[in-house]
Amino acid sequence: MTIKAVVFDAYGTLYDVQSVAAVTEQAFPGHGGIITQVWRIKQLEYTWLRSLMNRYCDFAGVTRDSLAYTLRILGLTHDEAVLTRLMDSYLHLDLYPDALAALSALQDRTLAILSNGSPEMLNALVRNSGLDGALDAVLSVDANKVFKPSPAAYGLIESELGVAPAEVLFISSNPWDACGAKSFGLNVAWIERVTPEAMASACASSDLLSPLTMFKALRTQMDELDLAPDYRIHSLSELPALLAAQRS
Amino acid sequence: MTIKAVVFDAYGTLYDVQSVAAVTEQAFPGHGGIITQVWRIKQLEYTWLRSLMNRYCDFAGVTRDSLAYTLRILGLTHDEAVLTRLMDSYLHLDLYPDALAALSALQDRTLAILSNGSPEMLNALVRNSGLDGALDAVLSVDANKVFKPSPAAYGLIESELGVAPAEVLFISSNPWDACGAKSFGLNVAWIERVTPEAMASACASSDLLSPLTMFKALRTQMDELDLAPDYRIHSLSELPALLAAQRS
Repeated sequence: MTIKAVVFDAYGTLYDVQSVAAVTEQAFPGHGGIITQVWRIKQLEYTWLRSLMNRYCDFAGVTRDSLAYTLRILGLTHDEAVLTRLMDSYLHLDLYPDALAALSALQDRTLAILSNGSPEMLNALVRNSGLDGALDAVLSVDANKVFKPSPAAYGLIESELGVAPAEVLFISSNPWDACGAKSFGLNVAWIERVTPEAMASACASSDLLSPLTMFKALRTQMDELDLAPDYRIHSLSELPALLAAQRS
Repeated sequence: MTIKAVVFDAYGTLYDVQSVAAVTEQAFPGHGGIITQVWRIKQLEYTWLRSLMNRYCDFAGVTRDSLAYTLRILGLTHDEAVLTRLMDSYLHLDLYPDALAALSALQDRTLAILSNGSPEMLNALVRNSGLDGALDAVLSVDANKVFKPSPAAYGLIESELGVAPAEVLFISSNPWDACGAKSFGLNVAWIERVTPEAMASACASSDLLSPLTMFKALRTQMDELDLAPDYRIHSLSELPALLAAQRS
């Protein structure tokens, strides 16, 4: 196997979506945790539901709608300015600490992002985080108007970069995304950021859960979709060695 | 508007999926609540993800897979017999208390179920709950091998019952399902089983949540999908009056 292009998911993989928690907590003290988790869970639900209904709207719209849902169910009143400030946090997400070093070590391959994000959101995020010099391309599913895990989303890698699926390594920490990429035919490395032991321990007392535990229970463990990623790693820093081993 | 057929979602609408909690708690004391909620949340996620990936497997398979996920993340070991016993609970769900009376009062229309459930699951459930005499048809999305809210799922009403979308009233308590049916073009009554006030009150202390509150926060309030059901009711018992008002 020759890997010509390494393609990264953005939200949750290169960028820590949990880093919006500081802004949500500042805007609604005492509610930052639950806002952060429900917002993210509903954001993804809406991408799947809209794709299935053939009612695509871009990720900025879905992100705003899922935030509106979250604040409404919590009974939190807000004005337009607060909504805009929370939305803006998606343009300033923290990079995972090992992201820049990993990308720098892989500069001999084509490096790209393939993300649900709208082009405007992704371009601002990449620029604000200083990744623009490290990436060859930033691909948005917006080009085909359907979200991951639709095959039409992963198909953009070949149509935009001219690299066949068998020559692509796709990286995601989102289990459903890793499965979708595998189902499409890409080589896939899944980043397991929460170990099964840590997960079971967080759920040990299941009478009451923190919102973060609730999120982890739903979206950090490998899904049961009859699909298995080719590689299971624990951080981006493992990628250079994984690719070097491939080459030899 | 003349309503010729009234078509019901099954799980969560006529049948209380929360009624598996007694069985899950018996099988895994202290974990019944979280098993029940994560199981249901993942079950629906898997229907959407598989539909988007074009990897349909029937609802029995999805229900078993989502249960396997749930027990795994909780670190609960189990044998095949326990899995089978929990799966069996889906064939013996409780009817909502007002379901039978509502169906009986509507016998002058065509009455049907349109459900994600596999034909085997639905037929057993309908028979076990004594609804077989009250329904003219039980439609499973399995006929088109794609789950709700795909338009192909709702299209089965017209192709199987011969009733045009404008002459159908579709009933669901699942917000995403009510939206999907509306997007397709059916008349829709959404059953709001948890009021916004009850929801906000359950989330008031958001440091820690019960699994049931977590479920409610994600799946009981109307979604933000730019769609609105035609009617918002609070129980099945409101349906006879709603349909009588339509006729006049």
